[in-house]
Amino acid sequence: MKKYCFGIDVGGTTVKCGLFTADGDVIDKWEIVTRTEENGKNILPDVAQTILAKLEEKKIQKDEVVGVGIGIPGPVNENGEVPCAVNLHWGYTNVAGDLSALTGFSVKAGNDANVAALGELWKGGGAGYRDMIMVTLGTGVGGGIIINEKIIAGSHGAGGEIGHAHVEDNMTEPCNCGSCGCLEQFTSATGIARLAREELANTDEPSALRGQEITAKAVFDAVKEGDAVAERVAVRFGEYLGKALSVFSIVVDPQIIVIGGGVSKAGPILFDYIMGPFQRYAFAACKETKFALATLGNDAGIFGAAKMVL
Amino acid sequence: MKKYCFGIDVGGTTVKCGLFTADGDVIDKWEIVTRTEENGKNILPDVAQTILAKLEEKKIQKDEVVGVGIGIPGPVNENGEVPCAVNLHWGYTNVAGDLSALTGFSVKAGNDANVAALGELWKGGGAGYRDMIMVTLGTGVGGGIIINEKIIAGSHGAGGEIGHAHVEDNMTEPCNCGSCGCLEQFTSATGIARLAREELANTDEPSALRGQEITAKAVFDAVKEGDAVAERVAVRFGEYLGKALSVFSIVVDPQIIVIGGGVSKAGPILFDYIMGPFQRYAFAACKETKFALATLGNDAGIFGAAKMVL
Repeated sequence: MKKYCFGIDVGGTTVKCGLFTADGDVIDKWEIVTRTEENGKNILPDVAQTILAKLEEKKIQKDEVVGVGIGIPGPVNENGEVPCAVNLHWGYTNVAGDLSALTGFSVKAGNDANVAALGELWKGGGAGYRDMIMVTLGTGVGGGIIINEKIIAGSHGAGGEIGHAHVEDNMTEPCNCGSCGCLEQFTSATGIARLAREELANTDEPSALRGQEITAKAVFDAVKEGDAVAERVAVRFGEYLGKALSVFSIVVDPQIIVIGGGVSKAGPILFDYIMGPFQRYAFAACKETKFALATLGNDAGIFGAAKMVL
Repeated sequence: MKKYCFGIDVGGTTVKCGLFTADGDVIDKWEIVTRTEENGKNILPDVAQTILAKLEEKKIQKDEVVGVGIGIPGPVNENGEVPCAVNLHWGYTNVAGDLSALTGFSVKAGNDANVAALGELWKGGGAGYRDMIMVTLGTGVGGGIIINEKIIAGSHGAGGEIGHAHVEDNMTEPCNCGSCGCLEQFTSATGIARLAREELANTDEPSALRGQEITAKAVFDAVKEGDAVAERVAVRFGEYLGKALSVFSIVVDPQIIVIGGGVSKAGPILFDYIMGPFQRYAFAACKETKFALATLGNDAGIFGAAKMVL
């Protein structure tokens, strides 16, 4: 009876690692440094080594391990191959094949945002559901689409890259992706700060946001204090996000939409601004779609990676 | 060895029926009338009767039949149940269960637009692909999302109802669904005719469209003749559709987008107007998504229904 699995989440700075039971209980979690030098050639060997060392430490036999799931910051195809991963300094890498050869275990690989979404479905904000859209509001906007508990990876590895949905024709400043008018430009932490600078520049109204560093956190803190300028920023944020989520929902019709990332730390107040526009624009049958906040934070990736092999 | 299957496509007026080999060759196709009187209570018994009669006619034994697939004009859940189907005058109907009881065969049921999409993937414009978005430009705009050769039915039966994606804030006339600004209002046959009436009203320019009935066909016929007003209509149509398809693509990242329905009879000229906006707004990795026209016409439903049980 195989009882254990590993969930690995490779980031540009650290690799997060988790040893799980097959029921999803965390036995141990730890981090190692991501060695990106020499085109990141040490990354997978380092992962293999830490996995094998952990087995020894925990006195677990290899035949008790179901396998290893691993999330990568880049596109990953259905065979677990990565054409390139800029943050890891990788060109083409057969992640699943190489890590399997290094460890002797069955390996599944996925894009890190998609894998984190799967983690939230399994043990986080989407627990108990099967079909989910996750949107991650961080420095950028990422996402993941989970249907019937499986990641929609996409035929070019771009499934769930919803931060780059075009939502605004009147935007001349380019997004990091090169296009203009992406959802990310208005609803990421960076985007919210830009909306706030715009609102402040357009008015002489007093606001708690003046004279401090403008961040998404500062905006939602000010909203909670009743600041009128911050409130207008939140309304614009919610209009962009709620409307976009209504469009994504008519494509895959999820049971639940889970909001994660740093911006989601503002808490349930986000829904006060997202739900109105969502309800206004959503197709009738989708208006009852549930919303929840992500709960796993930075651990979502290791949970989702583990779930991939179970 | 089971060698045959049935594909059934229930419409408000007729039921289209197909007898197929397991390889997807059509042995026979025919239609029966859809008897919607008495809350449509005869529809499934009529379908069962025509299936059993066809077996007798073709001297096929029941144990040679894999099963029956059936498309229904309404939402269908994963158990093959229909909460209601307005055009059939049905309330709750357990389509898969009832038709299975009536025929003795395994039955799979799906929404008609989704089932037609599956047919196009199997034997039509999407043949050879696995992941597809189909958009059907008819009186309304329907669609279907197929991932890994499976229909995304959606948790409220609304998967692929992309005609009701919100695409225009400056629309005050309501869509059939009750919302304002749906994709259907600009890219259906009806929507294209409305765009044409608007363009004609806004100018005194001569146009072949003046003095005739304004239809989508008339618009694209005039485009082919170089009519400047019709050309502007086509540009607006393509801008709405190409942009919307770029957003749908970032959600599920298909290999191919297939365009069907009456409007698609205009032919490849449609792509001249759709591809530019699609390329402009699509995420980099999705720009190489293929486009094709549907090829099965009204037979897509029986093909897709048959495919569901294979």
